[in-house]
Amino acid sequence: MNELAPMVLAARTHSLAGADHGRIRIEAVSPEIDNGRYPIKREVGDEVAVSADIFRDGHERISAELFYKPSYRPDWSSVPMELIDNDRWCGSFVVSENTTYHYTIGATPNAHQTWSDEVHKKLEAGLDIHLEIAEGLELLQEAITQQTVWSESIRNVWDVAAGAESQIEAVALLTSPHLSALMRSALPETERVWYDRVLSVTVDRMRARYAAWYELFPRSAGQVHGQSGTFDDVIDRLDYVQELGFDTLYFPPIHPIGHTNRKGPNNTLNAAPHDPGVPYAIGSELGGHDTVEPSLGTLEDFRRLVESARARGIELVLDFAINSSPDHPWANEHRDWFYIRPDGTIKYAENPPKKYEDVYPLNFSNPDWEGLWQEMRRVILFWIDQGVTAFRVDNPHTKPTAFWEWLIRDVQAIHPETIFLSEAFTRPKLMKWLAKAGFTQSYTYFTWRNFKQELIDYFTELTTPPVSDYMRGNLFTNTPDILPYFLQESGLAGFKIRAILASTLSSAYGIYSGFELCEATPVPGKEEYLNSEKYDFKVWDWDRPGNIRADIARINQIRRDHPALHEYDNLRFYWSDDDHVLVYGKQTIDLSDNILVVVNLDPFQPHETMISFPVEDFGMPYDEQYEAHDLISGERYFWSGGYQYVRLDPARESAHVLHLRRWDQGSYVEIDT
Amino acid sequence: MNELAPMVLAARTHSLAGADHGRIRIEAVSPEIDNGRYPIKREVGDEVAVSADIFRDGHERISAELFYKPSYRPDWSSVPMELIDNDRWCGSFVVSENTTYHYTIGATPNAHQTWSDEVHKKLEAGLDIHLEIAEGLELLQEAITQQTVWSESIRNVWDVAAGAESQIEAVALLTSPHLSALMRSALPETERVWYDRVLSVTVDRMRARYAAWYELFPRSAGQVHGQSGTFDDVIDRLDYVQELGFDTLYFPPIHPIGHTNRKGPNNTLNAAPHDPGVPYAIGSELGGHDTVEPSLGTLEDFRRLVESARARGIELVLDFAINSSPDHPWANEHRDWFYIRPDGTIKYAENPPKKYEDVYPLNFSNPDWEGLWQEMRRVILFWIDQGVTAFRVDNPHTKPTAFWEWLIRDVQAIHPETIFLSEAFTRPKLMKWLAKAGFTQSYTYFTWRNFKQELIDYFTELTTPPVSDYMRGNLFTNTPDILPYFLQESGLAGFKIRAILASTLSSAYGIYSGFELCEATPVPGKEEYLNSEKYDFKVWDWDRPGNIRADIARINQIRRDHPALHEYDNLRFYWSDDDHVLVYGKQTIDLSDNILVVVNLDPFQPHETMISFPVEDFGMPYDEQYEAHDLISGERYFWSGGYQYVRLDPARESAHVLHLRRWDQGSYVEIDT
Repeated sequence: MNELAPMVLAARTHSLAGADHGRIRIEAVSPEIDNGRYPIKREVGDEVAVSADIFRDGHERISAELFYKPSYRPDWSSVPMELIDNDRWCGSFVVSENTTYHYTIGATPNAHQTWSDEVHKKLEAGLDIHLEIAEGLELLQEAITQQTVWSESIRNVWDVAAGAESQIEAVALLTSPHLSALMRSALPETERVWYDRVLSVTVDRMRARYAAWYELFPRSAGQVHGQSGTFDDVIDRLDYVQELGFDTLYFPPIHPIGHTNRKGPNNTLNAAPHDPGVPYAIGSELGGHDTVEPSLGTLEDFRRLVESARARGIELVLDFAINSSPDHPWANEHRDWFYIRPDGTIKYAENPPKKYEDVYPLNFSNPDWEGLWQEMRRVILFWIDQGVTAFRVDNPHTKPTAFWEWLIRDVQAIHPETIFLSEAFTRPKLMKWLAKAGFTQSYTYFTWRNFKQELIDYFTELTTPPVSDYMRGNLFTNTPDILPYFLQESGLAGFKIRAILASTLSSAYGIYSGFELCEATPVPGKEEYLNSEKYDFKVWDWDRPGNIRADIARINQIRRDHPALHEYDNLRFYWSDDDHVLVYGKQTIDLSDNILVVVNLDPFQPHETMISFPVEDFGMPYDEQYEAHDLISGERYFWSGGYQYVRLDPARESAHVLHLRRWDQGSYVEIDT
Repeated sequence: MNELAPMVLAARTHSLAGADHGRIRIEAVSPEIDNGRYPIKREVGDEVAVSADIFRDGHERISAELFYKPSYRPDWSSVPMELIDNDRWCGSFVVSENTTYHYTIGATPNAHQTWSDEVHKKLEAGLDIHLEIAEGLELLQEAITQQTVWSESIRNVWDVAAGAESQIEAVALLTSPHLSALMRSALPETERVWYDRVLSVTVDRMRARYAAWYELFPRSAGQVHGQSGTFDDVIDRLDYVQELGFDTLYFPPIHPIGHTNRKGPNNTLNAAPHDPGVPYAIGSELGGHDTVEPSLGTLEDFRRLVESARARGIELVLDFAINSSPDHPWANEHRDWFYIRPDGTIKYAENPPKKYEDVYPLNFSNPDWEGLWQEMRRVILFWIDQGVTAFRVDNPHTKPTAFWEWLIRDVQAIHPETIFLSEAFTRPKLMKWLAKAGFTQSYTYFTWRNFKQELIDYFTELTTPPVSDYMRGNLFTNTPDILPYFLQESGLAGFKIRAILASTLSSAYGIYSGFELCEATPVPGKEEYLNSEKYDFKVWDWDRPGNIRADIARINQIRRDHPALHEYDNLRFYWSDDDHVLVYGKQTIDLSDNILVVVNLDPFQPHETMISFPVEDFGMPYDEQYEAHDLISGERYFWSGGYQYVRLDPARESAHVLHLRRWDQGSYVEIDT
């Protein structure tokens, strides 16, 4: 009953002992993920805007500061936060290094500001304020006594104010911006109330946000039917990838493939001796995850490929699939890493009724889980040493999220440039958990979102806080596992629609090779490719008719030319009165680059409609002519206002990608002759 | 680099050591205020529905339990939570005692469920499952070995299943609901993952939510001009209060009033000797906060009044105003509790240019703040001993919120029935902070919300989580400090409009006496009463023409008759096509009582409009006739469907309060002769 002191301590939310009795409250800090349990994500050069509700009971004024630093530095920097409205404060800092930053907030009662407010009101009311001036001088005296670097300057003001000839003159001196700034700087640190958490920012390099991925199977890069392509064949294809405009090249696993229960073409059970097997059935007597399949070449060849790609500005990405064939060295050396069945056999992977007899899943709950974790870390670091800077992670959602959190954090502590893409096609909350836990980018449900409202809903969610603070969607039009029904049915127009959507809805997107050829032959009734490269070598005719290589190259060029498309969270949807016509815009923060995209989502029929968007969002005065330049067709329009007519015929083009540009004509021209 | 173990611990969010490696995540728990920093509020008899996102990486199944208990009990009760959809789980418990409850969530991997799912899929696919059956029996064996109270029952199933004659028979036994329930009960507690917080519910008595307050100045309860009314006069007025239908009677301070700088009528500076002063200038040589002003009567008289009121079902509320007149005993005995100015005087209260020379504010930052806190607690407990069960707290926002949190928690630990109403007319976030910190009810901005959209916005916010989880708005039409401009301008119709809104938008509302007489004479240009009772005695003619006593009595009767109006968070707004016609409904959870309110907010002109509401919300089939009984006018309508015409003329009545009632005609009648 009389345990007053502990109760007070408990009641002192978000404050240190002695600091104003917990009267200042700091809450609703944004950005913040799960109470700071996970870092937010940004890219080098970004300005991190932090806002919070900061308030105190009573009428006393407060000052608030935003503190930040790269995690490796001992000392904090700080910037003042400004009161916006309704007790909401804002401040920002720039993250300039590819590392982890920390930030938090401190607030301090500002007795001088409180006093200034009161004395001004009394002066206006014509009241005598000689006692108030005495109180103001007392406040200065206290600040002087603190003996800070500001003490001398404050003493100078004190001297003049104490000798002022009128109350008005004294008040002018004692409430001047000069003194207010000094007094704010001199606020005693012991009175600062701290937000009770230190928050983190994972600052990645730009390509974590802005990238165009191209996926190919190296063994299908060759020219000879029934024979494996090689890393050297891939080197020969780099010009092609570069012409298409992709900057990131991703391979499914390149390791030796197991023999036991090897799959044949189209996932058949009994492979012929010449069948190469599934690249995800990793490991044989030749080695495991740190080994290259010899038919692709040597590790030396692989490093040469990495260098050749890099010379063209193309980054190389490997697949990280924690799978083991029955012939993987792990299966002999670490039987305890697997699931053992009652008959003593190792359990293979299943998703009933599907069976993956050629793959053993790893048991992360095994007693030697620590050994397993360390081996995974060793494999990643091995490939980083070979020049790999990014990993596409296969099915991360079937492994412990805590493992990924540890692995990514640990690897990025050494190699902060490393990018991890999560291929988690799973339930939405688990997908998000993986992103929070550290994955740099994430596969999304884009592949199955084809219609207007579902696209608006889903991409508003993905590109808006809180989701955009931790998850970057990398939009794949297709994958070796997924030939969407939409592409099976929609013909060339459908492929172009999906390419435009993927490349402009997000700043990161990707295609799996064959997409540019409009390859669309499914296993009947399934979302799978017939004669998939997953089970066989393949030789492609990259020039075959009906391809959209020029369209892909064009859209990648548009992306390079337009910084508005390099941003992720600047997507805004606008209105059209047709259920098939999707309208959205992207701008740079300074409105120097403005893109408006209009897509007819119907691959079969032309649609004409009115669209509406606020021209002010694009930096255009509402009453001025501006140019809308369609970067797809090359056509130009003069528009004024944001209510416009469009017609899009899939037989011609299904989309406008419009660059909106104000014509600067000058206010007048002066010609001196 | 090799500090793996600590990293794992850090990564084990929301889990205890050893529990499934942190693979289960429990998040987005609702209700929860500020991460559990503050309790939610409920009333005795409520069902507390708790939902959360609960999920695990991978495909393994989990079970989740909701744990709860009154805080004083050592042991937890639990109920199973059910998976609703998209990893969202829900469970609920009933709070039956006026005390604090705790609740939290535990989740456990359910290997038996995971196994059941898999074996069923394989059975459907026609696969051989003899190894699966062996694995299932192993799971049972593990559960038996735990030696729980369920072990024997599980062993019985094991015995039969092990001897089953077919795989189908074995699977039927091993996946039966009977065994599933046993296996769920036997889930090892060591594997349970706990939510990392224990949350709290403040369970108040019903009147915390459902109450009708009436405020009067006891000194104005008399019959003789220029002379103080007494507690005995108030006893004489209890019949009147009861006839009006109020259940809670609240007095401004009843303590001795200081002499120094006493205010005269209309807040004038020089009081005449017979002027009684402002009741908020508390304390004189006769005593302070634990003393009764002698002209009102004795403490004995006060207790008799409390009893008389209680006999009529009326509760008595005192004002708790932490103010001190210069003559208060504190000013002599505890000078250190006040603000001392440079000239040695005690600072009086100010809100420049307003001055309150008759009131000293207390300094909660004084070195003896602990003594001050304890004195406040003593005063509250003193009045509880006199039979007071509720306090209206004056200006709580100018005192430390931490103080209120301590005081209310401490008092309610002894007297859980005590109600505290926060009179914090301040910034919205501070108002909410006080509610979170413990105030049972809160004054709101209702007094200044008159138009349709602002009423919809504000009351949607107040009656919807998260705000409704911690804040109960007590809607006052007027107070001694506030005669709203709307009432000054709108005449009798305006008073009736505001009474209907206050009494039906919230389950708790109040009027300050004089409202029922439509008293509306302001200090010109201000929201203040002319000749306010705050500064003087007053004698009222309670029968004067133009009063709305019958209307107030009727609406309070309607409130008593209709349990739908006893609920706070069941308010829903509906559509009308007139900007002045507000439509809203309230239902009991079981839809046994249904109220639809339609208010013409314009006190000057009649409005007619179509309104629309989903009849299903009111338990009516859309294709059936139902009765809409206007409890104000007594008129009845047969309606079908939720699209209806209304016309409301302020010259007659500005509102419908409709009781919607289905006519149960039976499907047919069988008459035996």
